[in-house]
Amino acid sequence: MLTPIEQPIIILVRPQMAENVGAVARAMLNCGLTQLRLVEPREDWRSDKAIAMASGAGAVLEAATAYPDLRKAIADLQHVYAATARRRELTKTIFVPRAAAIEVDTHLKNGEACGLLFGPERTGLLNAEVAECSAIIEVPLNPGFASLNLAQAVLLIAYEWFQRKVLPVERQFLTNDSPLATREELANFLDRLELALDECGFLWPPAKRETMLHNIKTQFARNSLTQQEINTLHGMIVTLRHPRARGPRKN
Amino acid sequence: MLTPIEQPIIILVRPQMAENVGAVARAMLNCGLTQLRLVEPREDWRSDKAIAMASGAGAVLEAATAYPDLRKAIADLQHVYAATARRRELTKTIFVPRAAAIEVDTHLKNGEACGLLFGPERTGLLNAEVAECSAIIEVPLNPGFASLNLAQAVLLIAYEWFQRKVLPVERQFLTNDSPLATREELANFLDRLELALDECGFLWPPAKRETMLHNIKTQFARNSLTQQEINTLHGMIVTLRHPRARGPRKN
Repeated sequence: MLTPIEQPIIILVRPQMAENVGAVARAMLNCGLTQLRLVEPREDWRSDKAIAMASGAGAVLEAATAYPDLRKAIADLQHVYAATARRRELTKTIFVPRAAAIEVDTHLKNGEACGLLFGPERTGLLNAEVAECSAIIEVPLNPGFASLNLAQAVLLIAYEWFQRKVLPVERQFLTNDSPLATREELANFLDRLELALDECGFLWPPAKRETMLHNIKTQFARNSLTQQEINTLHGMIVTLRHPRARGPRKN
Repeated sequence: MLTPIEQPIIILVRPQMAENVGAVARAMLNCGLTQLRLVEPREDWRSDKAIAMASGAGAVLEAATAYPDLRKAIADLQHVYAATARRRELTKTIFVPRAAAIEVDTHLKNGEACGLLFGPERTGLLNAEVAECSAIIEVPLNPGFASLNLAQAVLLIAYEWFQRKVLPVERQFLTNDSPLATREELANFLDRLELALDECGFLWPPAKRETMLHNIKTQFARNSLTQQEINTLHGMIVTLRHPRARGPRKN
């Protein structure tokens, strides 16, 4: 087993516009990728317009290296995945980006270097280039409108790479530094609300009182309230029943 | 239960550049989304530059509608998710795009209309706007470099929406219309290869013959070969042993 390698290398084959290389650098860094190789780039990938499009990811452009042909660019890698939108007459495994991310991660942990290959803006990779790759990555998109620009193709595949680590946290509840209220704190509020509603004659007629109360309690009980929010509700009830002489007045 | 609704609605709040609205339309259609609403757009979203950036998704721009304020734009929806990169001092659930896609799908199937809200290019949504939303969507990205442009933010969230359906097909083996070879077809080839290698004296010295054979067979056996590829291999062996007088000649 070789030494583990941290990340896949993005390889752009014959990119035409320096701006697009800049936009790729930005998309890469968004997803924590920093290693970029260019095969026969047409323009200077460290030009002002490339750096402007990189929008803060200029260091990725600075560190990028150019190669005279594809074979040299992939010579030291063990696995190369070709990103392609068109189906080819080639016998290869096609991965969706999510599955490719897991596959690449496994290879990297075994110390095997991986490259992700993207073709020129308009034409994509040649069949001869795809033929030398280990497998294909195809992004599942609207079959009637699947054309992505270069940076967006890199973004989606790099995004899936980044997601492989963060997936377990699918949802979290963000509070304003106040802990969630306990059920006792909720119950105390509901009792106080019930008392206030009784005092002000809201729970009427008596035959409907219980149903009305259940519906009102349900609304608050299903909402994950923080201690701070419970306190605010207490204060609102007090103030609604006993208005204070402050704040904007009605004229 | 209401009638099921097909897709979430993308809502851009105060988009500044018509090009960016065009790029959003393209990203939407890539992921099968066609319903776009604009709140106080600064520029004409059907201008030539917007249509150029939409790159074939002009119909999404044509069908887009503008609203004078956020409340009117979301008035008929049941759920609204705010896409935001900055953490707010607000008590809300935060979804990653993948979890949001499942949540939105569930709501839509119950006939509840959903909107996905994106703020202006530089500033993002105001806290007052986020406060009126059901929940937040946050894209997990490199914490040191998480800034996405508007179209890329829409792309990643719309991409996850589209993926919710295609996920089961994570990997497929693409063949050139030829079925995979059976193990018998493989074995016939391996026998023939062994015979040919013996005849030409490759499997030598005898003490190493068996190990060499195992290694050679392993290489072919682990590769999912098609019938066509097996036939090609048969032909290659025959021709390598008995060259034919055709094709490019050495001069």
